[in-house]
Amino acid sequence: MTSLSDLPIRDDLRGLSAYGAPQENVPIQLNVNENTHAIPEDVATDIVRALAVAVMGVNRYPDREFTELRDALATYLGHGLTRDNIWAANGSNEVLQQTLQAFGGPGRSVLGFPPTYSMHSIIANATGTRWVTAERDSGYAISPETVVAAIQREQPDVVFLCSPNNPTGTALGIETIAAAYDAFPGILLVDEAYAEFAEGDTALSLLEGRPRLLVSRTMSKAFAFAGARLGYLAADPAVTDALRLVRLPYHLSALTQAASVAALSHAPAMLAMVDDIKAQRDRIIAALPGLGYTPLPSESNFVMFGGVADPNATFEALFEQGVLIRDVGIPHHLRVSAGTEQETGIFLDALTSLVGHSTQLPSGSIGKIKE
Amino acid sequence: MTSLSDLPIRDDLRGLSAYGAPQENVPIQLNVNENTHAIPEDVATDIVRALAVAVMGVNRYPDREFTELRDALATYLGHGLTRDNIWAANGSNEVLQQTLQAFGGPGRSVLGFPPTYSMHSIIANATGTRWVTAERDSGYAISPETVVAAIQREQPDVVFLCSPNNPTGTALGIETIAAAYDAFPGILLVDEAYAEFAEGDTALSLLEGRPRLLVSRTMSKAFAFAGARLGYLAADPAVTDALRLVRLPYHLSALTQAASVAALSHAPAMLAMVDDIKAQRDRIIAALPGLGYTPLPSESNFVMFGGVADPNATFEALFEQGVLIRDVGIPHHLRVSAGTEQETGIFLDALTSLVGHSTQLPSGSIGKIKE
Repeated sequence: MTSLSDLPIRDDLRGLSAYGAPQENVPIQLNVNENTHAIPEDVATDIVRALAVAVMGVNRYPDREFTELRDALATYLGHGLTRDNIWAANGSNEVLQQTLQAFGGPGRSVLGFPPTYSMHSIIANATGTRWVTAERDSGYAISPETVVAAIQREQPDVVFLCSPNNPTGTALGIETIAAAYDAFPGILLVDEAYAEFAEGDTALSLLEGRPRLLVSRTMSKAFAFAGARLGYLAADPAVTDALRLVRLPYHLSALTQAASVAALSHAPAMLAMVDDIKAQRDRIIAALPGLGYTPLPSESNFVMFGGVADPNATFEALFEQGVLIRDVGIPHHLRVSAGTEQETGIFLDALTSLVGHSTQLPSGSIGKIKE
Repeated sequence: MTSLSDLPIRDDLRGLSAYGAPQENVPIQLNVNENTHAIPEDVATDIVRALAVAVMGVNRYPDREFTELRDALATYLGHGLTRDNIWAANGSNEVLQQTLQAFGGPGRSVLGFPPTYSMHSIIANATGTRWVTAERDSGYAISPETVVAAIQREQPDVVFLCSPNNPTGTALGIETIAAAYDAFPGILLVDEAYAEFAEGDTALSLLEGRPRLLVSRTMSKAFAFAGARLGYLAADPAVTDALRLVRLPYHLSALTQAASVAALSHAPAMLAMVDDIKAQRDRIIAALPGLGYTPLPSESNFVMFGGVADPNATFEALFEQGVLIRDVGIPHHLRVSAGTEQETGIFLDALTSLVGHSTQLPSGSIGKIKE
C-alpha cells in the first residue's frame, strides 16, 4: 500500500496532519462555536424556495460576480457600503486565503497575535506567507501601543487582527485598529467572525478613507449558516478588484448564492437567537467561578476558561457524558460554545458532576497563562 | 479614488486582469461548454427535497469528509473505486489548485501541452508553480513518444494532460497516459472534464497500481451541474490524504454535498442528454465544411473550427444575432458548444447567414495552425 510519505508531496507538508476539530456524533456539540439553534422554519421554507429556483438553472454556470449576493451583504452591513465594497467566498477561510494570495505569498509576511484563530497561521503557511507573531497584553488585550510596536518591529506586509478573538473572546477597541492601520503601508485585515455577539464598534466604521483596511465576516456564527459556507469581507473596491485576480472563476455556486441571499432577506429572524446565545454565554461566565474555574470575559458566542488541572482529562470526562467542547491547546484552559438554554444547562451539569475529582487547579495557583 | 495599482498587491499580479469568459445575457449561449439542457423535473424535485433536509441542519458545519458524496462518486465512476479513492472540491479548478498546493508550488514545475484548458496555467501561476509547455503533434494529438520526450526534456514535478482536450476536443489514447506515467517520478493528472462525451477508454482504467496518477472529473458538463460547482478526482488513497493537508476545512458546503448526492443517484437520467449533445456536436462537424470552415474532430461537447478569416469579427457578427460562442485566442479559430437541437440550429443558421461576407479564409489558405 502506498503511503503519503511515498508520494512526491512538498517538503513543507511532510509530517503534517490535516487541520480540523473532531466531528463526533454526541448529543451536545459545543466545540466549534456553531449557532446551535436551527434556523426558523419559515426562513428555511423561503431558502428552499430560492434553492428550487436555482436548481432549475443549475446546468448553467453561476453569476461569477454574485451581484445579488453582494447587494444583500452590503445592505446587511450598512455603513454606507455598496456591492462594490463586498467580496465573498466559500467560508471566511477562503476569503483569508484569497487575501494572502493577493497581498501575501512568498517573500511576504503576515503578523498575528496568538492565541488566535488557528487557521490564520495555517493559511499563511499554505500560501507561502511567512507567519510572524507578537505578544498580547495581559488578559489577551492589544493596546494601540502594543500593536504599533509589534508592527514597527516586524515590518509585516499584512496584519491579521481577530476581534472578538477566537479562542479568547477578547474584543479589540477600534483605536487599536486605527493605530495599526496608521503604523504601516500594508494590508490590515480584521477578522470579525463573531462581531454580531459584541457590544463595541465594528471596524466597518473605520473603512471610509482607509483603502488598505479589510473587515471579514461570516454567516457561519450569528447567522446560523455554517453548513452553507459563506464568508465575506468589506473593503475599498480596489481590494475586491485585487481579489478577482486570484479567485477561481465561478467559485461561489448558484446554490450558495441563492441560499445566502434568501437568508439575508430574513436577517432579523436569523439574528433573533443572538441575544439568547449571549445570555447563555453570560450564564456560563457567571457559573464557572463557583465550580473553581476562571472564565475570560467574552464578546463572542463562546467562553474560554482557565483553572483546568488537566484539559484533556476534563475534555474526556465531559465527552463520556455526551458533551463535546474544545481543547485549544492552551495549558490549563478549555473553550466551550454557548448553546441553547438546554444544551448549556447539560454542559454546566456535566461540569458540576466533575467537582471533587481534581479537575480544577488548586485555588491560588496560576490558571491563566501568557502565550 | 483608490485604484488597484495603489494597493500593495503582489508584483506578479500587477497588470493582470481577472480570468473569465463574458457573461452576456443573450438568447443562445454556447460559449462555456455548459450542458444547455435543463435537468429533468423529477430529478430537480429530488434534489430540492435533499436540499430541504440539508437546510434544516445548516446551522451546523457540514461533514468535513463529505463521506456520502465520496461514496456516491465512487459508485458512479465504477472501476472498483471506493470512497478512499475520491476527492472533491468546489469545481475541478479547486481540485487542480489543491493538487498543485500539495505537489507543485514554489521551486516546482508543471508541464502542459497548449492549446489546453486556460485555467491550467493560471492555477500554476496562482500556486507559484512554474508552468512549462511542450508542443503537440499535428492535429493536436500527443503520441507516447511526444509525451515522453517532453517529460525527459522538462523534468517536471507534475504533468497535466487534458483528455478530451479543451479547446480542441482531442482525446488522448491511454497508451500516451501510461507512457507519461512511466517517464517520470512525479504526479500525472489527467483532466477528464469531458470524459462522458468520449468513446475511448478513460484513464480510470489505469489507476490500479499507479499511485501517482490522478484523474479529475466534473459534474459541470455531462451532468448539467455547472451551477452547483462540483469537481472531483479519483486516485490512490495516499493522494487524497495529501489533499487533506491543503484543503480548507469544511470546503464543501452541506448544500453542495446534498445536491450532488441527489443528482448522482439519478445518474442515468442526468446523463440522458449526452447522446443528444453528441449528435448535435456531430451535426456541427458535418455542417461546417459546407460553410467553408474546417472543424476539428471532437470527443467532447464542443467543436473548434478553423478557417475563420477574422475570429473577432465573426464572434461579433454572431453576437449581434444573439448567439454567443468563444474566441479562445487561436488565430483563425473559434469554439462553439453543442447546444440543444434548436440552439444548434440557430447557431448554424446564423453562421450560414454570414457566408459571402468574407468571414472564411480563402480556400487553400492555412486555416489550421500549430501552436
